[in-house]
This record gives sequence, structure tokens and C-alpha cells, in this order.
Amino acid sequence: MDKKSLMVTIAVLGGTGKEGKGLAYRWARAGYRVLIGSRSSERAVTASSEIMELLEGSTSIVGMSNREAVEQANIVVVTVPYSAHRETLQNVKDVLKGKLLIDVTVPLVPPKVTKVQMPAAGSAAQEAREIAGEGVEVVAAFQNISHEHLLSEDDIDCDVLVTGTSKDARAEALTLVEAAGLTGWDAGPIENSVVVEGLASVLIHINKQYGSTHAGIKITGAHHKE
Amino acid sequence: MDKKSLMVTIAVLGGTGKEGKGLAYRWARAGYRVLIGSRSSERAVTASSEIMELLEGSTSIVGMSNREAVEQANIVVVTVPYSAHRETLQNVKDVLKGKLLIDVTVPLVPPKVTKVQMPAAGSAAQEAREIAGEGVEVVAAFQNISHEHLLSEDDIDCDVLVTGTSKDARAEALTLVEAAGLTGWDAGPIENSVVVEGLASVLIHINKQYGSTHAGIKITGAHHKE
Repeated sequence: MDKKSLMVTIAVLGGTGKEGKGLAYRWARAGYRVLIGSRSSERAVTASSEIMELLEGSTSIVGMSNREAVEQANIVVVTVPYSAHRETLQNVKDVLKGKLLIDVTVPLVPPKVTKVQMPAAGSAAQEAREIAGEGVEVVAAFQNISHEHLLSEDDIDCDVLVTGTSKDARAEALTLVEAAGLTGWDAGPIENSVVVEGLASVLIHINKQYGSTHAGIKITGAHHKE
Repeated sequence: MDKKSLMVTIAVLGGTGKEGKGLAYRWARAGYRVLIGSRSSERAVTASSEIMELLEGSTSIVGMSNREAVEQANIVVVTVPYSAHRETLQNVKDVLKGKLLIDVTVPLVPPKVTKVQMPAAGSAAQEAREIAGEGVEVVAAFQNISHEHLLSEDDIDCDVLVTGTSKDARAEALTLVEAAGLTGWDAGPIENSVVVEGLASVLIHINKQYGSTHAGIKITGAHHKE
């Protein structure tokens, strides 16, 4: 547990879903204070208990409403299905100011989930930025990591591309990528989120074509600086 | 040299550029008949001679105008800078019918080449499809392979994502990916080209941030069927 993690509280909105639970588990394990948010506080409390069982009581995770979680957090992570994306953000936008918003949402449009179909804003993350308004840094990350991997101790053979509204915001998100035991890359401005989110459809297509279940990507030919 | 390659003639438009030369070299080496097209027939002939020197006379590559090359080819590969993309396609569109068009173009908008900025059609490949019209299958591929690697014998640590207007078109392009000594993946419909082309900006950004020169991607967690 480093000094940094002691000062940071992460709210995971949609934290009762599989991806949210997986991320919450990884960050709690790394020493962060993690709040599970949900539309239903009851379900958030249940999810918190489930994750704490996995952690064997080494730290505490608290469940509450999305709004309460945002109020108490420095970093807000959105892991809701795209259909709940806009409403979730609108319900908390007045308490988001000054916080870092990490958007994990993949804007899939069923039934054609193998086809990239972005919202008018360009990507879910850009849509989040429009809803959140001034004073909120927005980052897109973690779209392509399978929740099964997050809840296991397995090494994860998939890198995390991080796009965002500023280099500082991307750097802060990259700290959380590393804390989750993953390799991340600064993938540029928020406009590049279409690539990161769109990769989800490409990887689903590859899974269907090649009979795989967890296709991912790794960056080659580059290395993290010392 | 397999049977298939003997029946296929590939026209590489913009074949005097580095990427085009590299692909032409790889396909000629694999036994395909390759035509180098250029706005200037003279420059096309010069480029052909340069590639034939590398091949040490084992096969023949012919240089000619873009239009003549398209007329004689089954597969047309476009490797021009984005600024010449529309004009190149408009000049040959009446002789494209029934052929497979492989678009290698990355629609970068200088000076912000690290930011994804797609044309109104959604991607360069979708723009090519609009220009080419009915009766032409269009595929996007090879955007992220460095030309230095193509002209060397090095193993290339970057996969090729192939999007396109039909599964058959993607399969035909994947045969050429393999013939070039690369690993390719069927990455879905032509609408997914935004991911493949946009990755170029992401990889340029990664090169700048991490001091690398040839960042690439590999697909993990999936395997080609036997």
C-alpha cells in the first residue's frame, strides 16, 4: 500500500456488475478505499460483501447509492451498460466537479455488437464529457478486460489503452491500471476513445470468428520508461 | 508459389511510396504478379526496378500508370497519402468494378496526427467505398505495419486487422496478409475501419510518449483455426 492509495477514494458506479466488481476487487486489494455505487443501495451493500469475502477481510469496501459514492470519492469509475450511461451521469453530474471520471462503458448497439456504432458525441467517453461539463476530467479505459480475469489471480494478457482530456488525467488513470495489475498505455486525447471503445466490437468479432472467448490486445515495439 | 497466387494480379497504387514498395516486394516474393501504379508512369518504372533489385531477379514487377495497373489487376491496393486518396480513386473508379479494393490509407490530419480525426464517411475505407460505388468490395488493412519492416526479412511483431464489406473480401485480403508474412485477423464489417485506421494515431501517440519508433499491436487470447 503506497502513500498515494491512502489518499484516494474510488467510487465504482455500476459496481454491482461483473466488470465493476472485478475492478473494485483489484483496487481494494491494492489498498485503495473503494465505494460501490448502485441505483439500489441494497444491491451495492450486497456486492460489497461479496467482494470483501474474496478479499478475506483485509480491507473494507462500502456499498451505497451512486450519488453518495460520488460525493465521497476523488475518482469516479463508470461501469454501467451503455443503456444506463446517460442517466447515471446525469444523476450525479452536480457532484462530479473537480473529480476524475473514468469511463469503462462500451457503447454497443445490440443486436449488432460486432459492428462499431458510436454515439453522436464520437464515443461514450466524449458523451460523458458533454454531460459532465466543465471542471471534470474524463478518461476512457478498461473496456477490453474480461471480468473473469479481474476476479481471478491470473496474469491478464491484455493491455489497457487510456485516452483522456489531459495528460495528467491519463497519468492518474494509468496509476490505477497498474494498481489493478495491468499494463496500461497513454493512448492520447479523448477523441481517440473511438479506437479504445471500438476495439470491443472488433474483439467480440474475433471471438466469434476464431472460436475464442477472451481475445485481447498487447502493444508491441514500445516499453515503459524506467 | 501456390496455385492461387498464379491467377492473381495485384495493382499497388501509390506503389512508389515506401509502404507500397514494401507490400509490392513482399507479394512479388510470394509469387504474385505485381503491378506498380503511380500518377507518373516513369516513377512507377523506377520503383519497379528498385524492388526487382531487392528480389534479385526472381520475378518481375512492372511499373505503369495507376489506371493501366487497375485495368490489368484483380486486386487493387491503395497506398497513397490521404491528401491524394479521393483523386486517386476517382481517376480509376470506372475500371474498378468487380475487383477487390484494399485500402491502406490512414486519414491523418496534420499537424495533429496523434488525434483520431476521421472523414465524414467514418473512415478512409468507407470513403473509398462511397467513391468506388456498387460492385466493388472494399477492405481496410496494413495501416499499422512499418515500411522498414516490410522491406527487410525481419519478423514483424504487429498483427494486421482486416475489416471489409464482406466476409469473402476479408478472407481474400487475409490470404494476402499471410503471403506478406504477417498475421492477420478478420476484424469485422467495414464500419470497424475507424478502429483499424484510428489505431495509427494511437500508435503514433504511444511512440511519442514512450520514445519508441515502431509500436504495434498483437491480438492475444485467440488462435487461427487449423
